[in-house]
Amino acid sequence: MDNQHYLPTPTGLFFDDFTIGQKLTHGVPRTISSADCTLYTALTGSRFALHCATTVANAAGFAEMPIDNFLLFHIAFGKTVNDVSLNAVANLGYAEIKFSQPCFARDTIAVSSEVIGLKENSNGKTGVVYVHSKASNQHGGLVLSFKRWVMVHKQVGAAASGINKVPQLNTEVSVAQQSIPEQLQLQQWQDSFSDYQRKASDFKVGDTLFHRDGITINDSDHSLATRLYQNNARVHFDQHLMANSKQGKRLVYGGHIISLCRALSYNGLGNGIWLSAIHSGSHCNPSFAGDTIYAQSTVLAITAIAGREDIALVKVQMLGIKNNNPQHMQYLVNHADGKKKYHPDVVLDIELTLIMLK
Amino acid sequence: MDNQHYLPTPTGLFFDDFTIGQKLTHGVPRTISSADCTLYTALTGSRFALHCATTVANAAGFAEMPIDNFLLFHIAFGKTVNDVSLNAVANLGYAEIKFSQPCFARDTIAVSSEVIGLKENSNGKTGVVYVHSKASNQHGGLVLSFKRWVMVHKQVGAAASGINKVPQLNTEVSVAQQSIPEQLQLQQWQDSFSDYQRKASDFKVGDTLFHRDGITINDSDHSLATRLYQNNARVHFDQHLMANSKQGKRLVYGGHIISLCRALSYNGLGNGIWLSAIHSGSHCNPSFAGDTIYAQSTVLAITAIAGREDIALVKVQMLGIKNNNPQHMQYLVNHADGKKKYHPDVVLDIELTLIMLK
Amino acid sequence: MDNQHYLPTPTGLFFDDFTIGQKLTHGVPRTISSADCTLYTALTGSRFALHCATTVANAAGFAEMPIDNFLLFHIAFGKTVNDVSLNAVANLGYAEIKFSQPCFARDTIAVSSEVIGLKENSNGKTGVVYVHSKASNQHGGLVLSFKRWVMVHKQVGAAASGINKVPQLNTEVSVAQQSIPEQLQLQQWQDSFSDYQRKASDFKVGDTLFHRDGITINDSDHSLATRLYQNNARVHFDQHLMANSKQGKRLVYGGHIISLCRALSYNGLGNGIWLSAIHSGSHCNPSFAGDTIYAQSTVLAITAIAGREDIALVKVQMLGIKNNNPQHMQYLVNHADGKKKYHPDVVLDIELTLIMLK
Repeated sequence: MDNQHYLPTPTGLFFDDFTIGQKLTHGVPRTISSADCTLYTALTGSRFALHCATTVANAAGFAEMPIDNFLLFHIAFGKTVNDVSLNAVANLGYAEIKFSQPCFARDTIAVSSEVIGLKENSNGKTGVVYVHSKASNQHGGLVLSFKRWVMVHKQVGAAASGINKVPQLNTEVSVAQQSIPEQLQLQQWQDSFSDYQRKASDFKVGDTLFHRDGITINDSDHSLATRLYQNNARVHFDQHLMANSKQGKRLVYGGHIISLCRALSYNGLGNGIWLSAIHSGSHCNPSFAGDTIYAQSTVLAITAIAGREDIALVKVQMLGIKNNNPQHMQYLVNHADGKKKYHPDVVLDIELTLIMLK
Repeated sequence: MDNQHYLPTPTGLFFDDFTIGQKLTHGVPRTISSADCTLYTALTGSRFALHCATTVANAAGFAEMPIDNFLLFHIAFGKTVNDVSLNAVANLGYAEIKFSQPCFARDTIAVSSEVIGLKENSNGKTGVVYVHSKASNQHGGLVLSFKRWVMVHKQVGAAASGINKVPQLNTEVSVAQQSIPEQLQLQQWQDSFSDYQRKASDFKVGDTLFHRDGITINDSDHSLATRLYQNNARVHFDQHLMANSKQGKRLVYGGHIISLCRALSYNGLGNGIWLSAIHSGSHCNPSFAGDTIYAQSTVLAITAIAGREDIALVKVQMLGIKNNNPQHMQYLVNHADGKKKYHPDVVLDIELTLIMLK
Repeated sequence: MDNQHYLPTPTGLFFDDFTIGQKLTHGVPRTISSADCTLYTALTGSRFALHCATTVANAAGFAEMPIDNFLLFHIAFGKTVNDVSLNAVANLGYAEIKFSQPCFARDTIAVSSEVIGLKENSNGKTGVVYVHSKASNQHGGLVLSFKRWVMVHKQVGAAASGINKVPQLNTEVSVAQQSIPEQLQLQQWQDSFSDYQRKASDFKVGDTLFHRDGITINDSDHSLATRLYQNNARVHFDQHLMANSKQGKRLVYGGHIISLCRALSYNGLGNGIWLSAIHSGSHCNPSFAGDTIYAQSTVLAITAIAGREDIALVKVQMLGIKNNNPQHMQYLVNHADGKKKYHPDVVLDIELTLIMLK
């Protein structure tokens, strides 16, 4: 065709495209279906009973099975990628992930973000973007709020701005800010639902659980999961592109690692039925297809809830490890020289609070 | 067992089993569910907003999310394989693919075909079969009509018939023959739904978009998709068989390539929310697991619709390319010597019309 | 953390943990959804029409599509793994699998087992555990009952018990014990639904069908299926663990092989629309990703049903074969030296009864 000429297609934002206070209304709202939940089970092997059976959900006070908050998080996160992190070098961290109210099948979520911090790197080629993202349901009700920061490329040749506005981020979501779903009542919970596992009152701070099972990631597993979340970051999908990267292969979406670790943690923390907050998280090292993921959890705090004899809050540090058994490793996180250093086989360090049977 | 003896099992039709005017009622009617849609998202990464959220579908005039016409096409196509193309050497082309009315979750489709052409090849071993296939819903209403032609083996030792009846096929579906869903009204569409992308009025004929993202096909991806469509062509599934073929490995179902290219095209054509027709299509070269697929679209025509200020028809040529960037290739389609010749990395050439926000 | 110390996590039962008469209430009840059915189609390629279309189910007397009994079996089986076979060396066999009543989408099943036999092995390291498992729906109605036996590790250093209580197991489920769903009426069945295939009256005892199609197992296929069934046996998922096993790689869940063979058997037995019993079954050899599975069926018995002109019971032996064509193999099962010996490419030997159009 003689008059053919190339038009540019959307590329996402570069570091120099962001401004403090900028509002981003992310595209492609998403109705969550029961099929999302089923596929999530098939992708992760999760067995947390509240999300597996209507009878269990009913016994826990819900009219129907609520959506797993990890699934909700990935869908909401996926929405932000097209604007925030399409040009990301690395996903550096999360903070203040709060789940305000449960979602159910047929709910539609829409996601927007505000830029809350920008810090140019001294190399002149990249900068760190901090965003505060909010997911709302079809009634406009807030369901999820989270902050994250990513290192993003500058446009080629972009001038230095010297911007250095790092926001104040809390290291945890306070108990007062954590929502307990109003329906949740566990007096009728049957211990058999969750394999007669330990409850909050059976744990003490410092207890560490190696969750024993391992799960090997297949290429299709993480590709299907990441597409399900409509996360379109190229590093997860384009082997032709990644063949020329430092790693030479596609990176597994870090959120898939979070979900695998959560699923593995059923074996030991099966009574931690609801996720009320993720305090902080980082992907310490990349994962690839072929890696086998293990998880280990350490109890950081156990908090009673006034007026509730059925549940307690259990704060946990969950580490993801690849191709290694944490019980045989010299260290996972090393603080020896005053700086946090992760073993190269540690792929995830995340702190979260579970609502657990008391 | 002494009295054991082998009975033959169905093998599909051979070239010499077909007759002009023959009617084929294909087996296994199929109810489309919302899970098909979810799985389609996970398999392709599609983000066309009309199929992602009830809120968006409602804003577009639909009571619920309509089924993606590409998914509908694959399910209908799959039904024809067991009769038409189980003994196919190659799937040669498509023409006149028309979508008459939208389908919704819980609709059941049944498919029948009529043989409209037969052309024996001079090698005496194969021939080309032309069929006109129609998919109807549970109310008997036509939802999809398409023509395709395949090269099919003759039975071993079948006599020459010399048949050479090639049907007249239109090179395009005229605008008059394209259906706009009666519900469709985009006055309430929010630009954020589709990432504030270009609309029909922002394009002109000749505009070409390289859709930037690439997607690497994993063996499970295409196997899952092809099984979901209940397409049982052996070349896609049986590695033991294919190890002895020219290619030595399983072929990816061409329809999966179409869907990947469509999904990739969201980045640039995200406002082309509805597929009203596929005018013609061919799988120029085979794809295999491990290939990374890219897509490029060129605007062929933009047609206003009388009385409609919200939408226009945008006719597009979409090319699928594997393991290569079309912007760096010397040619994609070469007409130099009077014959259409494709670059070996071009895997798909399809012309289709999108209903696009105006 | 200074006070960090490891707590043990659940490991499943060892041979010496079981006692005759012991009742096990398995965890994580499971609501079956239409998405399970869709995913099952995508994982296996099954085309049995009763489970594919509401119109077909209606024509067969059902108000909605019933759940495929093979899917039901895998979900129920999966529930037992965490208690019964987490420390299994091998899954030795099944007997007396009876389907009492159909399940439908939205039904919830819960599973319990009773230990009915224990036989210590002379090596002092393992023993065989026999269990009788029952799956009930949310109304407490029995839907499925089955017996299986597995070889399970003893705890390291466990004392010898010399126990040798092998239960009496029937070699088949009698016709009187097989349930025909009360809704099932096939007078309105259209032959086109199931591709105009042979009916019960077209078969005689000894007829053998090689089902022709083959299906190559990808790593993600069997992983997704096994996770969907929430079967958490480590041998299927943990490549890091299995790298040190005799086979060096993950084993495919035997139930996935059953489902693939069933799906392949559509081509020839497509009118065997309902599974009323599995009489016996064994996984003769292991399967791995990359294997191509074929299936062959031999008719063992055809039984008329009093008062029913529409259906008959067809008892079949179904063999699964990997990477080989049974028609070209010297033997599949060899009884020559008085002992049953399987060809190393035979992976499944199962006897089942189908309700078939008469």
